[in-house]
Amino acid sequence: MNSELLMIPGPVLLHSRVLKAMSRPMINHRSPEFAEVYGECIAILKEVFQTKNDVFVLSGSGTAGMEAAVSNVVDGDDVVTIVNGKFGERFKEIVALYGNPIPVEYEWGNPIELSDVEGALEKGASAVTMVHNETSVGMLNPAKEVGALAKKYDALFIMDGVSSIGGVDVPVDKWGVDIAIVGSQKCLAAPPGLAALAVSEKAWERMKAKSPYYLDLQAYRKYAAKELAQTPYTPAVSLFFGLHEALRMIKEEGMHERIERHRKCAEAVRKAMNAMDMQLFPRLNDVSAYSNTVTAVKMPEGITDKQLRGGMKKRGVLIAGGQAHLKDKIFRIGHMGNVSTKEILVTLEALESTLSELGVNAEGGVAAAKDALK
Amino acid sequence: MNSELLMIPGPVLLHSRVLKAMSRPMINHRSPEFAEVYGECIAILKEVFQTKNDVFVLSGSGTAGMEAAVSNVVDGDDVVTIVNGKFGERFKEIVALYGNPIPVEYEWGNPIELSDVEGALEKGASAVTMVHNETSVGMLNPAKEVGALAKKYDALFIMDGVSSIGGVDVPVDKWGVDIAIVGSQKCLAAPPGLAALAVSEKAWERMKAKSPYYLDLQAYRKYAAKELAQTPYTPAVSLFFGLHEALRMIKEEGMHERIERHRKCAEAVRKAMNAMDMQLFPRLNDVSAYSNTVTAVKMPEGITDKQLRGGMKKRGVLIAGGQAHLKDKIFRIGHMGNVSTKEILVTLEALESTLSELGVNAEGGVAAAKDALK
Repeated sequence: MNSELLMIPGPVLLHSRVLKAMSRPMINHRSPEFAEVYGECIAILKEVFQTKNDVFVLSGSGTAGMEAAVSNVVDGDDVVTIVNGKFGERFKEIVALYGNPIPVEYEWGNPIELSDVEGALEKGASAVTMVHNETSVGMLNPAKEVGALAKKYDALFIMDGVSSIGGVDVPVDKWGVDIAIVGSQKCLAAPPGLAALAVSEKAWERMKAKSPYYLDLQAYRKYAAKELAQTPYTPAVSLFFGLHEALRMIKEEGMHERIERHRKCAEAVRKAMNAMDMQLFPRLNDVSAYSNTVTAVKMPEGITDKQLRGGMKKRGVLIAGGQAHLKDKIFRIGHMGNVSTKEILVTLEALESTLSELGVNAEGGVAAAKDALK
Repeated sequence: MNSELLMIPGPVLLHSRVLKAMSRPMINHRSPEFAEVYGECIAILKEVFQTKNDVFVLSGSGTAGMEAAVSNVVDGDDVVTIVNGKFGERFKEIVALYGNPIPVEYEWGNPIELSDVEGALEKGASAVTMVHNETSVGMLNPAKEVGALAKKYDALFIMDGVSSIGGVDVPVDKWGVDIAIVGSQKCLAAPPGLAALAVSEKAWERMKAKSPYYLDLQAYRKYAAKELAQTPYTPAVSLFFGLHEALRMIKEEGMHERIERHRKCAEAVRKAMNAMDMQLFPRLNDVSAYSNTVTAVKMPEGITDKQLRGGMKKRGVLIAGGQAHLKDKIFRIGHMGNVSTKEILVTLEALESTLSELGVNAEGGVAAAKDALK
């Protein structure tokens, strides 16, 4: 049906084991069989999150997870909202529905200054939101440091780990993340449509009486604690089958190995861009601030998004463009989930060939990546 | 893995074509491929809803659909909430989050009196909520009549068709349903995790500025109208593949034939209960008020839910118990989706055998159903 190589920052290609799991016959969602699947998902997710906190899986996208996080602990409160990309903006928009955002904002792709965050927290906000891996610009934001500041000012730290958790080292408890969110379709290499949240004791203490009905974390907690672990509303059972299998594969690989694989793939892509004289977007002094799950690259002068991505698609590789005002300005290569050497090299080969066809001299990428992936 | 016959009122067993569709390789959710799947789903759903209104598919359960309906048009408004079962109560709870419920309430399973609804509407409510097929008690509520009353009093009619649409005749436009909701895992025989809504022009005119971010129908409308039809947030792509195939099967069968099949199966179950001296719950004078997608039956004296359902499970058939205060008082047989003669007879055979083992003399059900299904 479709043999294109999906190298966008989610949804990612699924392993045949995960695809097969989704075609299991339907079961009752309030049965021992479902409780077992749900329970095993939670157990492995706790390892992935590196947390002892409660973990739940919602049947909804990462955005539903972000809204669940905010809406359950914010009710008219001041919330520091850190923004340096599209998903940081989304967090701010969600906070605005439930409380008062105190924005700490930068141009998309500019690094976060911790002094700005501290300055905002000093005024007494009850929480701070941050996107850990800003998918829109390929940046990793300083979660550990913001976690420490949140603790210092007794604010809840709500962190979108949608596209980092499962591919990057994210010690949720150590960093003091009070609500961490991951999306199923990114580094976990599961189908889209599920979001998992880890909720700290401090977050439970500050739960508000009201939240959207569908996203009520207290209902999730109540139903998870039943004799047969379950969800308050009918879950997307087939997606849980897929997630379950994907998580088993993560356990088989080992988180350490998985993180290292993501790191190596990302490094190879960055080295390839360097060899090809392509400019990373943004340009960062601190290399550890580049995302290890998605790389954003400046569009070469005179080339449109349509030309570049069209040429890649013709070669069977799908990459992503820039979002909103970054359309035609950047392109993005996702390298999360099951991606390894083969996919990276095929993608870079297609990129070299596409650019060459478009009259851009950009060679040596494949060679540089090969070298890095040795 | 699982060969039990699932005869609960959703999720239902999926056809192998639907299971297979879900194991299609992942695609970009902002691609022409997804737009085609989404577009075809919408086109067939409009036929199922019998509507010219806008139709959207949300990645969430039927409850998410109910909340999307209420939260987009209610903001402090008075809303008549009709309750005669569990899901009517859920509607009332959701309304209470966004406005002021004016309850028209009955014991679970008691019929709705239209004069009560009219009396409540006279006071000037902006909307009325009703569950069409009350899954918790196996009843069909008077949608056509409540639609007419809503029109008379210029109120929006928000109708939960979660477990009726696709198995029962629901002419949404003719009945004046302003927001109708269906769940994927019931009569549509698709996987759980999606909810579709049909939204009338009158509903659009009364949209409020605020709703939960994830359930914002105006965002769904905006994204559906893009050159490539899409959803505002990452959809549960694999579930859309499943829904797409399930809807194609509905088209192949024909809605008329499908409704007739559901009607016949339900009639056979009711006749079987009668032959077996089992009492339907509730006892209704108007036979057309019995659900054609789920039948509720009084638990025989001295038999517990655990005994009855345990005996059925031992025989490979899963049925549902009563919810909340109806636990141990009733059991429920779902007969929606792909259910036909074979499944009905296997279920009744297991029921006769289970009851006999439990010392209840209840024979003749299979024979009566066979007769009805001729």
